[in-house]
Amino acid sequence: MIKLGIIGMGSMGAVHAQTIQAGETPEIKLTAIADCSETRRSQALDNLPGVEVFDDNDEMMRSNLCDSVLIATPHYLHPELAIKAFDNGLHVLCEKPAGVYTKQVREMNDAAEKSGLTFAMMFNQRTNSVFRKMKEIVSSGELGSIKRVNWIVTDWYRTQAYYDSGSWRATWKGEGGGVLLNQCPHNLDLLQWICGMPVKIRAFCHVGKWHDIEVEDDVTAYFEYPNGATGVFITSTGDAPGDNRFEITMENGTLIFKGNSLTLRKLLQNEREFCKTSKDGFAQPECEAIIVETDGENPQHTGVLNAFASHILHGTPLIAEGCEGIYSLLLSNAMYLSSWQDKTINIPFDEDLFLQELNKHRGD
Amino acid sequence: MIKLGIIGMGSMGAVHAQTIQAGETPEIKLTAIADCSETRRSQALDNLPGVEVFDDNDEMMRSNLCDSVLIATPHYLHPELAIKAFDNGLHVLCEKPAGVYTKQVREMNDAAEKSGLTFAMMFNQRTNSVFRKMKEIVSSGELGSIKRVNWIVTDWYRTQAYYDSGSWRATWKGEGGGVLLNQCPHNLDLLQWICGMPVKIRAFCHVGKWHDIEVEDDVTAYFEYPNGATGVFITSTGDAPGDNRFEITMENGTLIFKGNSLTLRKLLQNEREFCKTSKDGFAQPECEAIIVETDGENPQHTGVLNAFASHILHGTPLIAEGCEGIYSLLLSNAMYLSSWQDKTINIPFDEDLFLQELNKHRGD
Repeated sequence: MIKLGIIGMGSMGAVHAQTIQAGETPEIKLTAIADCSETRRSQALDNLPGVEVFDDNDEMMRSNLCDSVLIATPHYLHPELAIKAFDNGLHVLCEKPAGVYTKQVREMNDAAEKSGLTFAMMFNQRTNSVFRKMKEIVSSGELGSIKRVNWIVTDWYRTQAYYDSGSWRATWKGEGGGVLLNQCPHNLDLLQWICGMPVKIRAFCHVGKWHDIEVEDDVTAYFEYPNGATGVFITSTGDAPGDNRFEITMENGTLIFKGNSLTLRKLLQNEREFCKTSKDGFAQPECEAIIVETDGENPQHTGVLNAFASHILHGTPLIAEGCEGIYSLLLSNAMYLSSWQDKTINIPFDEDLFLQELNKHRGD
Repeated sequence: MIKLGIIGMGSMGAVHAQTIQAGETPEIKLTAIADCSETRRSQALDNLPGVEVFDDNDEMMRSNLCDSVLIATPHYLHPELAIKAFDNGLHVLCEKPAGVYTKQVREMNDAAEKSGLTFAMMFNQRTNSVFRKMKEIVSSGELGSIKRVNWIVTDWYRTQAYYDSGSWRATWKGEGGGVLLNQCPHNLDLLQWICGMPVKIRAFCHVGKWHDIEVEDDVTAYFEYPNGATGVFITSTGDAPGDNRFEITMENGTLIFKGNSLTLRKLLQNEREFCKTSKDGFAQPECEAIIVETDGENPQHTGVLNAFASHILHGTPLIAEGCEGIYSLLLSNAMYLSSWQDKTINIPFDEDLFLQELNKHRGD
């Protein structure tokens, strides 16, 4: 069993604590929690018998009660807390996003590497059987190279009441961004996990378009990949009814994720070959539509927690390596920078410049 | 009856002649055709008994055999031929696109206006009952303002053999563009007809990406509308299987065109009101999906021909006013300019600059 401490008992921290206490993670013992809020500490004392409660995460980390921590604090704190945990010899499971700006996340990744400790990201959507299957099919190469990627994920609807529910919400100082940083880290991680990283991004982030907020709630982004493939990513918290459709067109067919099911429109001949050899100008390669079966398993947060413990105890693979958290943040940081500078951003970009611009936005 | 002459007996000209000869246009008599190709003239002599055949369109226009002309020549010639027809007192029905660059189309529109003659564009897709219904619903205002438009129309697949079938194809000199100018004028016209004109365009036109051609065969374009709504338009002749899905998100619901059927995801409450008044941060306005019924009529080219004749004879409305042909061309011209200049283009843009850039591309 690993002995886990949770830092931050907000909504996600509390959910993880409940999951562990409910016995769903047989190799994890929740030994401690730390939170700066007296209300949340007192709730923890009531709800988590036998778990030590700290008001200071330093003390918890030095208490010898934990060999590992789960970080579920506001975004900005993730890297500094992870670095402190590694300094204390503790394994780290970090909530998404990895941080707010890639410069701080690189420091976290360096500290993780030097420590030799286990470092994992809470990318629970990677456990979804449909996304796992997409990753498997694309990576296998059976459908050839990617030609186009469209992800329209506009089903993150939020009312003004949501944004009014906490003064830190949807602020540059509190969250470090809007829909890209709060709602979309999973989508952006899946996008890069399945399709790889683009080399160019042009994005149009609209600030306070649908809500009275200072950060973006509507984004259209265009990508170019190393092989010349293109993509769009469209998201919003203002669309009702929203949509969630993720399509990947490849040389041998198109994968379509929609409504948590996966369709493959499979070509009977490689399109690139067909295009070059067909004698008929208007002909198309034959195509059959297949509903792709998956193993149906979708263990989500519990799956990430169990894989984290098992990795520490038995060396089995993680769901998401901690150092991979930077990729989704590279995407969202590049989208902000593209909007702020009104131009296309090449990846890698100037991360000092990004931080400078972010600091202007948060009034530092 | 009107007495019509057709200029250009390529694939579309021949189709229109057959339609008229088959008796589908009771108010049109085909009296003459003009074509510079001896082969096509000789085919016309064989297939169109009683129709006068000219090798020179000037002679045909001055022959007194026609009171109107249908222009079905290569794109660049449309404006100059239309202007000549107006000078000869002839009504004009012009094949799409209106021309290649907006500057020449403005001259055509001015000539049409001065002449007082009938001027129509062959935007036959406007006769499709589904697009007519979309136009009707959006224009009625019953769904409120437009918030987002996505048109992914990638079902224009062409093989290399298509492009190799004529040396003028897919050249700046011959056609004046690629997928935007040959395949997409209908889509771009419907887009502006139904949703209005954007004020900003940022486009990424990829030249010879899927085929050995000098013009674009893959385009992603981003729009902004006067009210702040955004849109994307994605097209290609290299996607198989392609898609054709046109979605318009409005305050009271989303219209979705797909597979020539129309779905309305209708909200029971205006989203903008709901967002501001709901007490629940995660609530969404209730929604019902409706298959939208239409009159099912889709008279296409025949409908445009008959409306043209009826307008001249009885003053009834055209399917598409000739002067509206400029809008789809403003869109495609702006997309080229955005790509060439690697920046966002405001509409209206500098049309002299566009022509200058086009001339560079066609080697003038």
